[in-house]
Amino acid sequence: MTDTNQKAQGPFADIAPALDQLTQQVLFGEVWERGELSKRDRSLITVAALIAQYRINELPFHLKFAQQNGVTRDELVEVISHMAFYAGWPAASTAVGIARKVFAEST
Amino acid sequence: MTDTNQKAQGPFADIAPALDQLTQQVLFGEVWERGELSKRDRSLITVAALIAQYRINELPFHLKFAQQNGVTRDELVEVISHMAFYAGWPAASTAVGIARKVFAEST
Amino acid sequence: MTDTNQKAQGPFADIAPALDQLTQQVLFGEVWERGELSKRDRSLITVAALIAQYRINELPFHLKFAQQNGVTRDELVEVISHMAFYAGWPAASTAVGIARKVFAEST
Amino acid sequence: MTDTNQKAQGPFADIAPALDQLTQQVLFGEVWERGELSKRDRSLITVAALIAQYRINELPFHLKFAQQNGVTRDELVEVISHMAFYAGWPAASTAVGIARKVFAEST
Amino acid sequence: MTDTNQKAQGPFADIAPALDQLTQQVLFGEVWERGELSKRDRSLITVAALIAQYRINELPFHLKFAQQNGVTRDELVEVISHMAFYAGWPAASTAVGIARKVFAEST
Amino acid sequence: MTDTNQKAQGPFADIAPALDQLTQQVLFGEVWERGELSKRDRSLITVAALIAQYRINELPFHLKFAQQNGVTRDELVEVISHMAFYAGWPAASTAVGIARKVFAEST
Repeated sequence: MTDTNQKAQGPFADIAPALDQLTQQVLFGEVWERGELSKRDRSLITVAALIAQYRINELPFHLKFAQQNGVTRDELVEVISHMAFYAGWPAASTAVGIARKVFAEST
Repeated sequence: MTDTNQKAQGPFADIAPALDQLTQQVLFGEVWERGELSKRDRSLITVAALIAQYRINELPFHLKFAQQNGVTRDELVEVISHMAFYAGWPAASTAVGIARKVFAEST
Repeated sequence: MTDTNQKAQGPFADIAPALDQLTQQVLFGEVWERGELSKRDRSLITVAALIAQYRINELPFHLKFAQQNGVTRDELVEVISHMAFYAGWPAASTAVGIARKVFAEST
Repeated sequence: MTDTNQKAQGPFADIAPALDQLTQQVLFGEVWERGELSKRDRSLITVAALIAQYRINELPFHLKFAQQNGVTRDELVEVISHMAFYAGWPAASTAVGIARKVFAEST
Repeated sequence: MTDTNQKAQGPFADIAPALDQLTQQVLFGEVWERGELSKRDRSLITVAALIAQYRINELPFHLKFAQQNGVTRDELVEVISHMAFYAGWPAASTAVGIARKVFAEST
Repeated sequence: MTDTNQKAQGPFADIAPALDQLTQQVLFGEVWERGELSKRDRSLITVAALIAQYRINELPFHLKFAQQNGVTRDELVEVISHMAFYAGWPAASTAVGIARKVFAEST
């Protein structure tokens, strides 16, 4: 983490620079780049984890990011439906509402 | 659900027959069979959701089932590592311990 | 699930028709109709689970639905207070805020 | 809380006497005794909250206590099945396993 | 709880007077006043628990209260960063957003 | 993370070497070493987060580690009691049971 290359600052840089650096360098710079799982697979499991944990604020970004990584809208809807059984209907219900908005904004 | 075909009974049949029937007919009979997501994808998101929610009792079955559905051990370990960032290190730590046992049993 | 009767469409029908059908036919069509628990009992446990899991988006509907199923406002407030001990004060605090709004809207 | 009557000590008294006193005097001494909800209702919502939150260590006591408070085994199984939809199949699956043991021990 | 002194009413008094009384007398009147942990320590662990559990509605009050109890803004940001590892990045991300607002309001 | 210094291997090295390296280098090597919070403070919030999230497998290590970092047993018990109010009685109850064992083992 003593990397001296300039990395793009992320959304936490203003008040949480250390967390921001970890996010940019470790989470997005290393973990998401590891070849052991494709980015499509990583997006699938990230979206699943966010739905299951009711992380409502982070879901919009990752629903969009998942589409950039090759997950289709139909697949995202199917992830939500699958999660109804593995995290409960309320988690799926909230995810449907968020997905509806995210999809509408970029149509 | 008034299907008169005999379906295999599942693990809840002894004391929770209604839940068992829903599990066999709806969850495994319908949801897992829907073509909108491959079984490999469904296993990936199921394992992610179990790790993220610390569902320690259900994780062994789904780590094995995921392998039947084409997820490799290296990929499962990578899912766990990815979940360290999306559900916290403790969730990943427990999943490593469970995976170690599951992998050892079937070596 | 090969039922050919027309069922009312629910709130997920626009983007998640499969989940919507499961909701209408299985969750509301079968589970809530099973006689093993009264609808009042089902509403009590549903509201408790929503409070305990901080499912803030689904709580308004179920606070209203519980009243239709015979749970009084005083009982709903008591469920919230009981949950303070079984899911923590923050979960109860948020539920009080939601109940206050729901009750005010239908006075 | 300045009650000078001797109260029975509870299970936390050895290492957490303050929590034990709060448990005996406030939680069981006051909250469970409030007439706004019957003990049967309180047991229903407590069991639901424990299942939904995967509180595996506390569930055995409350499955037994619920029966003392008038909830039948069939009703407890139905609570678990209902929770499959409101907290996910894994939570219900674990609860079935715990209920099976609890019921077997007291047959 | 047979205290006859007038205590200040809290935010739940309008619709949940029993919970309000427990909050004022037991939680804030007793627990927060116990000398076994300083108020600064209690604020640290309360904020940590709220972040970890994604209790988004209660976090603003406790971020302010923590500052009254001697936790600095830099320390609060560090708690959030630490929680990224113990509860996942999404929990930390949401906490950063809330802290940003809370800090801005009282600058 | 291209550090060529040898670091001690941790408990995940056998099957999850990448996660192990992140744990040793980033979590324990950097985050726990940052001076913005004392190690005592970090232990307090870590234990609180583990209790609140019912991370039963990780709690024993961190109850011991907290004592190494200067948190007394009485303070740990008080953290548990405080968490009863912020994460619910069941989470505290399980933590008492774990603390009892951990304390007994090292008496």
